[in-house]
Amino acid sequence: MDKNNFSYYIPTKIFFGSGMINKLGEMKLPGEKALIVISSGTSMKKYGYLDKLCKLLEKNSCEYVVYDKIKPNPTYKNVMEGSEIAKKNNCDFVIGLGGGSSIDAAKSIAIMVTNEGDYWDYVHGGTGLGLPLGNKPLEIVAITTTAGTGTEADPWTVITKEDTFEKIGYGNNDTFPSISIVDPDLMMSVPTKLTAYQGFDALFHATEGYLANISNEISDMYALKSIELIGRSLAKAVNDGNDKEARTDMALANTLSGFVESTSSCISEHSLEHALSAYHPQLPHGAGLIMISESYYRFFMDKVPDRFIKMARALGIQNAEEPIDFVNGLLKLQKDCGVDELKLSDYGIQKDNLEMYAKNAMDTMGGLFELDPYKLTLSEATSILEHAYK
Amino acid sequence: MDKNNFSYYIPTKIFFGSGMINKLGEMKLPGEKALIVISSGTSMKKYGYLDKLCKLLEKNSCEYVVYDKIKPNPTYKNVMEGSEIAKKNNCDFVIGLGGGSSIDAAKSIAIMVTNEGDYWDYVHGGTGLGLPLGNKPLEIVAITTTAGTGTEADPWTVITKEDTFEKIGYGNNDTFPSISIVDPDLMMSVPTKLTAYQGFDALFHATEGYLANISNEISDMYALKSIELIGRSLAKAVNDGNDKEARTDMALANTLSGFVESTSSCISEHSLEHALSAYHPQLPHGAGLIMISESYYRFFMDKVPDRFIKMARALGIQNAEEPIDFVNGLLKLQKDCGVDELKLSDYGIQKDNLEMYAKNAMDTMGGLFELDPYKLTLSEATSILEHAYK
Repeated sequence: MDKNNFSYYIPTKIFFGSGMINKLGEMKLPGEKALIVISSGTSMKKYGYLDKLCKLLEKNSCEYVVYDKIKPNPTYKNVMEGSEIAKKNNCDFVIGLGGGSSIDAAKSIAIMVTNEGDYWDYVHGGTGLGLPLGNKPLEIVAITTTAGTGTEADPWTVITKEDTFEKIGYGNNDTFPSISIVDPDLMMSVPTKLTAYQGFDALFHATEGYLANISNEISDMYALKSIELIGRSLAKAVNDGNDKEARTDMALANTLSGFVESTSSCISEHSLEHALSAYHPQLPHGAGLIMISESYYRFFMDKVPDRFIKMARALGIQNAEEPIDFVNGLLKLQKDCGVDELKLSDYGIQKDNLEMYAKNAMDTMGGLFELDPYKLTLSEATSILEHAYK
Repeated sequence: MDKNNFSYYIPTKIFFGSGMINKLGEMKLPGEKALIVISSGTSMKKYGYLDKLCKLLEKNSCEYVVYDKIKPNPTYKNVMEGSEIAKKNNCDFVIGLGGGSSIDAAKSIAIMVTNEGDYWDYVHGGTGLGLPLGNKPLEIVAITTTAGTGTEADPWTVITKEDTFEKIGYGNNDTFPSISIVDPDLMMSVPTKLTAYQGFDALFHATEGYLANISNEISDMYALKSIELIGRSLAKAVNDGNDKEARTDMALANTLSGFVESTSSCISEHSLEHALSAYHPQLPHGAGLIMISESYYRFFMDKVPDRFIKMARALGIQNAEEPIDFVNGLLKLQKDCGVDELKLSDYGIQKDNLEMYAKNAMDTMGGLFELDPYKLTLSEATSILEHAYK
């Protein structure tokens, strides 16, 4: 593919900045009754974000129903149950409030409110049937309280089917949120570890999108800017959650990484992690990525050395001259964020199963391997996991 | 305004790169019968671009009618006449093929096909009534053959009302093109002088958007990348029209400058030029900007010195330390492009009228003066034109 040929489409209206949540009290909303999708955890209630949202909708004469059952790795069951509740209550749009889990679930629920049958009928990859959607999904409003998955600025939704151990991304031009609120005020309460995990997820969206063989000048611009912001502010946000400037940088980095997802793509690092957390749903996605990252980037650094040097410079290592400088920068950032000691074995992952995970990655999200700058064999993919294992 | 708060909305699907025009033969189009809007000049026919477009539409079973009367500064009359032709022929979407003139005219025609009354009823500023649009405009497809005005990636359309000497920009969320084709193959035939004029227009969209008091991290990213591409490739494209790499860089710079227009704004440099070409329609917009630019940027360089140093570095002067370095880089680029000898007096502009132009700029496009990094008085605006006069 000619690197100079690309298409660009990000139709989401994004309201970025402190206090932007309040726009929802004034703006024209996409419907009259919302299904609000939040996690099964307590933070949206504890920190008052759900109350705040409900008050703004009431001010805007908008009705709502709350569905509060989303798992950290949102499930096929969440999607089917949520869409039933939306239909029963005649909701005409969906609001995802929270991290990537809630927003992704909102997207998939929006699909199943207007489309018949089973969510897995439409998923591409694994046991998904890959059928085309018959109808446009409901419109989606994304309110991200983490930085994060970038899902507020891309069409992707990642859902786990627990019985078949499949964790697969899906999306098309109709699954971009119509409206996204990226308000760093809602991110100040994210705990230390989660701030780090999510920040590294955003980083890897940028680095993978930068290494993908479909990257282009526009996606590169977003990726390098995101890497720069993360290099500057992730450790600060992790070590002082009240550092508003660092939180704002991370919020922007996350949205830019979503732009990277919309204009380039993740590559096989994400497929490999999805395989791990499909089998081990208690493994946070960002933590999984962190644990395989050193091995992954060491493998690829000699395949596209110039890109690694540019990523190292963006990360803040201004005099970077060698691809290894990026790997070293990555390790330093992990240390600065206190996530350099994570171990796959702590999450129940067994060394004997690594080839199985690599195979699952290729079976369920093999498409991303096609976008790698070098085509991995199963044994190479397995060896990346082996080198990551401790 | 908090620099960290902004909204982002660019809903256009952009197909960028060599050969991308051919997508129009395959993709789902926004309607079944197009009004094709082209200039009153000969180039769209001479170079076969119109034929090419017609064949692609035929392949895609789409009917069309051609309106080929657009002036270099498209007029109110063009808009009203074009919309009558579209209505009479039951066109259900509009294609602008050509430079900014044709695409802007297409946007304004699309408005007047679905809205009653007079185009100037809806224009804000000058004698425009500023009424809200009652209906959504027809969908717009933009095919840009110049680099350019960036109009393929922004909602703006600039129309001249000849009888009142008003040249005013208009746009809203519904006047973004639905689809834009940015195909450098269609730009190889642009003559030397026009390549330079249009390239500087793109440059000033970036520099003005970077200096605007509503600039933000995302618009800054687009602006600096656009300035970088222009510094690298404008003189090459001017001096060798067959340099495809330079043409591709300029095409991308132009689209990025459109993104700047969509996320930040032009400032008073554009208002001042519009006043000149409202009275002297034979003055190409880009040439007008070039002639006032040295004086304009000299005036502002001490108001926001850091921004000037960053613009100088983006332009390729890596060791820039002073704001004047940007002005000197600009002058060198003008020399390298053979446009350093342009004179306002050659276009019939008289020294005695300079205050009248400055006043017209404030009367018709005063809004942009509000976005300047420093608020100009009428006498300061006049003095900028006086220093530019030769």
